[in-house]
Amino acid sequence: MSAAVPPASSPDVGHLRCVRRAVGGFAWEGVDVLAYKDTGSAPFAGVKRQVLFDGAGRASELRYFEVAPGGHSTLERHHHAHAVIVLRGRGRCLVGDSVHAIAALDLVDVPGWTWHQFRADAGEALGFLCMVDSARDTSVLPTEAELVALRRDPAVRDFLRV
Amino acid sequence: MSAAVPPASSPDVGHLRCVRRAVGGFAWEGVDVLAYKDTGSAPFAGVKRQVLFDGAGRASELRYFEVAPGGHSTLERHHHAHAVIVLRGRGRCLVGDSVHAIAALDLVDVPGWTWHQFRADAGEALGFLCMVDSARDTSVLPTEAELVALRRDPAVRDFLRV
Repeated sequence: MSAAVPPASSPDVGHLRCVRRAVGGFAWEGVDVLAYKDTGSAPFAGVKRQVLFDGAGRASELRYFEVAPGGHSTLERHHHAHAVIVLRGRGRCLVGDSVHAIAALDLVDVPGWTWHQFRADAGEALGFLCMVDSARDTSVLPTEAELVALRRDPAVRDFLRV
Repeated sequence: MSAAVPPASSPDVGHLRCVRRAVGGFAWEGVDVLAYKDTGSAPFAGVKRQVLFDGAGRASELRYFEVAPGGHSTLERHHHAHAVIVLRGRGRCLVGDSVHAIAALDLVDVPGWTWHQFRADAGEALGFLCMVDSARDTSVLPTEAELVALRRDPAVRDFLRV
């Protein structure tokens, strides 16, 4: 789709770190381990975030999230979609109104405006890649009325952590 | 950035396959194993492609490529960038004017208009995820003059497969 004209020679990429190596499991050279969110901004437990590819020069970001055993991400939704691939461990996730067991390499598609939450509730860490649009809206937490509606299903009620 | 208003209730996602399970290694429910490219369209050997998340509803796609032992992707470049994370095996890649050994979980950043090629030259399959903008230009192959320039470096000359 692009009408861009190729440059006569390759750009100088010598100054870029084209390859960043995995070191000691699910950590990478030059990639900081970040808090999932600001403490107190939303309910979560035991989640760390690493931005593997930011939005510079591309339409999306690729992040790695790791949920410690017993931990959970925030129950939330937003306009943008998530594309998730599990990299390590096992756990469960809510997508919309159903709860799914997930394990390494499984794919999770979270459409826009869909409630979702990830839990590492199988006694081990749950780590996953998540692709999102670089330009995106912020997350919305459920209202009390929305929580009541979600909890009508006993399986969902037992799963949710808020 | 979005001014979208949340719907009163979650969209009906019951008809979607929110979770697609990994089956037997690096294959997934509902994901076809595709040819890397049309035969004869570009030089490559032993590469298969699986589209894990297409561009519907998101700005990027996430694909899984697997290069069979001894195989290689096309030496090419384009305006769009690649964000790669190795999922299995070992091999080497060219990015720009340097060759790098890569192994599982390593990250490879291929900026726009940068020559790149992946080889499974370590006696095992090399599998990697590749994130790209959904709207993107097509690949360009090197001219003879560009090949001559790339081959000035003996390490690059030995690596290239065209």
